[in-house]
Amino acid sequence: MTDNTRILLASRPVGEPTHDNFSIETAPVPTPGDGEVLLRTIYLSLDPYMRGRMNDAKSYAAPQPLGEVMQGGTVAEVVESNDPSLSPGDFVLSYHGWQAYAVLPAKYVRKLDPAHAPISTAVGVLGMPGFTAYAGLLQIGKPQPGETVVVAAAAGPVGSAVGQIAKIKGARAVGIAGGAEKVAWLTELGFDVALDHRSPTFKADLKAAVPDGIDVYFENVGGHVWDAVLPRLNTYARVPVCGLVASYNATELPAGPDRSPYLMTSILTKSITMRGFIQDEFVKAHYKDFQNDAAGWIASGELRHREDIVAGLENAPEAFFGLLTGKNFGKLLVQVGDDPSR
Amino acid sequence: MTDNTRILLASRPVGEPTHDNFSIETAPVPTPGDGEVLLRTIYLSLDPYMRGRMNDAKSYAAPQPLGEVMQGGTVAEVVESNDPSLSPGDFVLSYHGWQAYAVLPAKYVRKLDPAHAPISTAVGVLGMPGFTAYAGLLQIGKPQPGETVVVAAAAGPVGSAVGQIAKIKGARAVGIAGGAEKVAWLTELGFDVALDHRSPTFKADLKAAVPDGIDVYFENVGGHVWDAVLPRLNTYARVPVCGLVASYNATELPAGPDRSPYLMTSILTKSITMRGFIQDEFVKAHYKDFQNDAAGWIASGELRHREDIVAGLENAPEAFFGLLTGKNFGKLLVQVGDDPSR
Repeated sequence: MTDNTRILLASRPVGEPTHDNFSIETAPVPTPGDGEVLLRTIYLSLDPYMRGRMNDAKSYAAPQPLGEVMQGGTVAEVVESNDPSLSPGDFVLSYHGWQAYAVLPAKYVRKLDPAHAPISTAVGVLGMPGFTAYAGLLQIGKPQPGETVVVAAAAGPVGSAVGQIAKIKGARAVGIAGGAEKVAWLTELGFDVALDHRSPTFKADLKAAVPDGIDVYFENVGGHVWDAVLPRLNTYARVPVCGLVASYNATELPAGPDRSPYLMTSILTKSITMRGFIQDEFVKAHYKDFQNDAAGWIASGELRHREDIVAGLENAPEAFFGLLTGKNFGKLLVQVGDDPSR
Repeated sequence: MTDNTRILLASRPVGEPTHDNFSIETAPVPTPGDGEVLLRTIYLSLDPYMRGRMNDAKSYAAPQPLGEVMQGGTVAEVVESNDPSLSPGDFVLSYHGWQAYAVLPAKYVRKLDPAHAPISTAVGVLGMPGFTAYAGLLQIGKPQPGETVVVAAAAGPVGSAVGQIAKIKGARAVGIAGGAEKVAWLTELGFDVALDHRSPTFKADLKAAVPDGIDVYFENVGGHVWDAVLPRLNTYARVPVCGLVASYNATELPAGPDRSPYLMTSILTKSITMRGFIQDEFVKAHYKDFQNDAAGWIASGELRHREDIVAGLENAPEAFFGLLTGKNFGKLLVQVGDDPSR
């Protein structure tokens, strides 16, 4: 057995993260104790929320500690098991971060059935990103048949699910993404309109795409896309605020409140609902429904997804930088080890 | 019978309204037709929303037309009736604006029982302002026992009801108002803490007043009060956005979206709910409950109110200017004619 490669947070980024913020180290592969399993990482999920945790600031969760393995969702194979619930060769969903091997209590992982779905989807369309789309859209956005739903970062794992679920619920779906290739894919997925936010005519394109205004805007991005969307929101519009990836690397944000007069006035005069969320709060009430619904929609072809797989754990930092600037196309995964189920 | 005095919108204000924006004219008292009533105005309600309607901009409702009588809620006495549902001497709630007499179809007014409650409360604690507090706090704010509710413009008719209803529901109530006299009254009403936003130590005072953070902020004001509140909001805080009186006269607001990075990031990282509203949308589902609840709370002494009555229709513009800068203390009414029920 080889050594364990691990990527640690070496320093906190100021603005865009760089290779200096990470250190790669080699450590012995750990040995599982009683009730524990040794896991071999197959896929590491890279997600925008990770950027927030690299800061030393209050966010969703505690900051990622310095000098420790970068946190993240993983799909892994059991190598050794000291717990009756798991056997070598089993596949599991875990949360052991940017490393090739890990030891965890068996109760901290969830067994995956490769016959049910490709195991990589456990961190994608059937996992956290898919559920984020499902819960945020249906519990906060509440699209009604005939309403217009707009989603940014629409070629990403959350955005692509938002648009397709909006269609399943009878709404019009308008997707916004960066670049012709992504826009073409959104059309393939059945979005009613797909727009390129990099186009010089983007603002006018959006206006033309929503002749009846916008009823639900699923916010993943912020920045100039939000600028273009806000004036088009209808009375009683709902805005699930899921992410603001355009500003995650910003260094020049105001340090304090700015009164946001245009936004506040818009909220007031249009009876708008803005609601920040992370999927955790909806797990208890809605995760089961999500798994049933999503499995059915995938089987019927109504919910499709795409993966962007980067080979090699050592390439995780570079892939992560690209994620924050929209370079990925689909769910970004790092292939850390072989996937025997494919 | 005298002539009818009417106050019209003569021009749209830029910034603070002035006397030049109004014209006072005298017209013959109109004659009621079939199914109509002639009304003599007793009370005219002055409310902050009127400032928004003076602009030629999309707001809650269509702008107040130029050259027409200023709109507004009124309490009136029936002088002549050509409808079997009303008789001379009856008191009614109407919406015929800044004028001493008006003719309306009888079906557009609601009969008031002076034995049930003082008739002026029909535009106050038992009317639109009271229902605004009730619906916004309970349907959007949803205060739970032990939570902290903060309300600005707390000595106004909406804010004072918000704080008292919060107490009735078992929450802590923190009221913010301008000046020592208003602050003292809030304490009398049972607010747990009352703060003067004009104090140089206001920001620190607010911080000290909410050791467990803020769960519900009922937004009436905007401006520097909102600046102080936003960093103190808790995870899952709810912000009913009812008014922004601090900015109604502003002329230097940005003309377009400003991305509001601090606010958007706060909404995201704290899972905050912001929700603009006007009371109309809740009338059908909740007005009956409001009337029952409010009548009970007034009878038990749990819901108290205060009126600030200015004599003479000709003084309505000046009183309205004061309303926009916090000079009123309680529900601002113009006594247009005698109240035979007092």
